[in-house]
Amino acid sequence: MDKTRVAVVGLGNVGTGALDAIEAAPDLDLAGVVVREHALCRARQLLPPHVSVVSRMDELGKVDVAVLAVPSRSVEKVAVPLLQQGICTVDSFDIHGSELWRLRQELDQAARQGGASAVIAAGWDPGTDSLIRAILALQAPRGITYTNFGPGMSMGHTVVAKEKEGVKNALSLTLPIGYGQHRRQVYVELEPGYALETIANAIKQDPYFSHDETHVFAVKDVAKLTDTGHGVVMERHGTAGKTANQFFRYESRVTNPALTGQVMVSSARAAKRQPPGAYTILEIPIVSFLPGTLQSIIEQYV
Amino acid sequence: MDKTRVAVVGLGNVGTGALDAIEAAPDLDLAGVVVREHALCRARQLLPPHVSVVSRMDELGKVDVAVLAVPSRSVEKVAVPLLQQGICTVDSFDIHGSELWRLRQELDQAARQGGASAVIAAGWDPGTDSLIRAILALQAPRGITYTNFGPGMSMGHTVVAKEKEGVKNALSLTLPIGYGQHRRQVYVELEPGYALETIANAIKQDPYFSHDETHVFAVKDVAKLTDTGHGVVMERHGTAGKTANQFFRYESRVTNPALTGQVMVSSARAAKRQPPGAYTILEIPIVSFLPGTLQSIIEQYV
Repeated sequence: MDKTRVAVVGLGNVGTGALDAIEAAPDLDLAGVVVREHALCRARQLLPPHVSVVSRMDELGKVDVAVLAVPSRSVEKVAVPLLQQGICTVDSFDIHGSELWRLRQELDQAARQGGASAVIAAGWDPGTDSLIRAILALQAPRGITYTNFGPGMSMGHTVVAKEKEGVKNALSLTLPIGYGQHRRQVYVELEPGYALETIANAIKQDPYFSHDETHVFAVKDVAKLTDTGHGVVMERHGTAGKTANQFFRYESRVTNPALTGQVMVSSARAAKRQPPGAYTILEIPIVSFLPGTLQSIIEQYV
Repeated sequence: MDKTRVAVVGLGNVGTGALDAIEAAPDLDLAGVVVREHALCRARQLLPPHVSVVSRMDELGKVDVAVLAVPSRSVEKVAVPLLQQGICTVDSFDIHGSELWRLRQELDQAARQGGASAVIAAGWDPGTDSLIRAILALQAPRGITYTNFGPGMSMGHTVVAKEKEGVKNALSLTLPIGYGQHRRQVYVELEPGYALETIANAIKQDPYFSHDETHVFAVKDVAKLTDTGHGVVMERHGTAGKTANQFFRYESRVTNPALTGQVMVSSARAAKRQPPGAYTILEIPIVSFLPGTLQSIIEQYV
């Protein structure tokens, strides 16, 4: 059987995690890595010589699926031209709600034009946690699910904190305080001449932080505090039929970029198996994410 | 929008759970209950007058989906004629492995003939637990998942124990002893003149029990010990990409027949939405099991 050829776009933490997952998969081949022109040299130094590192996808020959390890805000502009050329895409767009639906509709149109498919929001949350939330709800339709993140580093919030004027480096931790509520602790290295109070206010007023209790601390060396461990606890008490007190709990303790990369790569397999169109992970049968024949998957997991 | 009309076949614990779940669903209507001729009278006494209780499916008018609350060994012979007539079916066939694959192939043929669809093995294990097992594996492809059942009453093992000669009533409990291993404790009420030792041997030699450590106890009143609470703990340590020590844990504490009935009814909704054929729960997108529009489901759960 021909292996599916997968390219990785971007070589940050998540891109590196995706590379590892492709190399470990029995049914996938790494087509290569696509980075921006200015990052070519560094990327080639980081990767072993057998990995093709290019700045344009068309330098890689046949590519079935592109794993887009790029910021959420860049997903649409990177994905649309690839889909229109018939290359499937996977992203880990991480903004919940109506923006996600809008992205799905945009990519769906491009995917149908190009005869390719897109799997969107395919990380762990949104992503595999979304599957779990839906499975809890189908088992006990009435009730509340609490999603408690962390303790762990939030990639998105860290980026926002780093961008504030006067911040040299930053780390934003998400700390669960129970029943779906979170506290954020932001550790910042200040540029000379900046006051903690000014920067703390700028961070707390940002829409990324303004809904949560946020504490900002000045430290000398953010790097010493940084760890990519993360996790979630989801709990639901609900009613099945007319019977109350059905309890479900899902917990993960994971390495954030490794898990995100792995879920994206499992989703690359699923992308190849779907008809043209864009899909959230909830719209794809679970068998599509696993290697092997239908019979072997059913006998192993059912 | 027309509601989906769902019938329930069988009125044991699971059938009653399914009835409750249909009545609680916003998008489903109860078409009625089908029981064997000799059980009609008792079923009519148990149910409120607005519920149609019949002995033949064709007495219920239009039926979209039949929820088969019947023993695993009866699923095939009940499902095939319904599927051939174009009525979708849902069962909770609970034998893992190659027998399940064989049932899927048999029902697939009947379903395609009749233009209907069948969702098979749609309880909690096999069923929603199967989904969880597959989701853990797609997140960390290398590793071991341990499924620990109970403590709780095993319906299948209880039936087998009750059928032994000299047993008036029985209860088989599944007790987890760690890392996927289980002990079974069977409580029996003896008929006069039978010895515990003889019955204990007959139970321990049955293929249902012979693979597990089994203890058999004689008691005066099995009914006083009986509780339908059950649950599972599934744990996986695995590797995502090349990163070890990814940990996942799923736990449920549930009322066995209520949850089984609810999962079957959520699956009735999914059956109606699939093209003709037979499906395990792993082959169907999760969105199909939930009420509401695609956009509302995505915005709520992703």
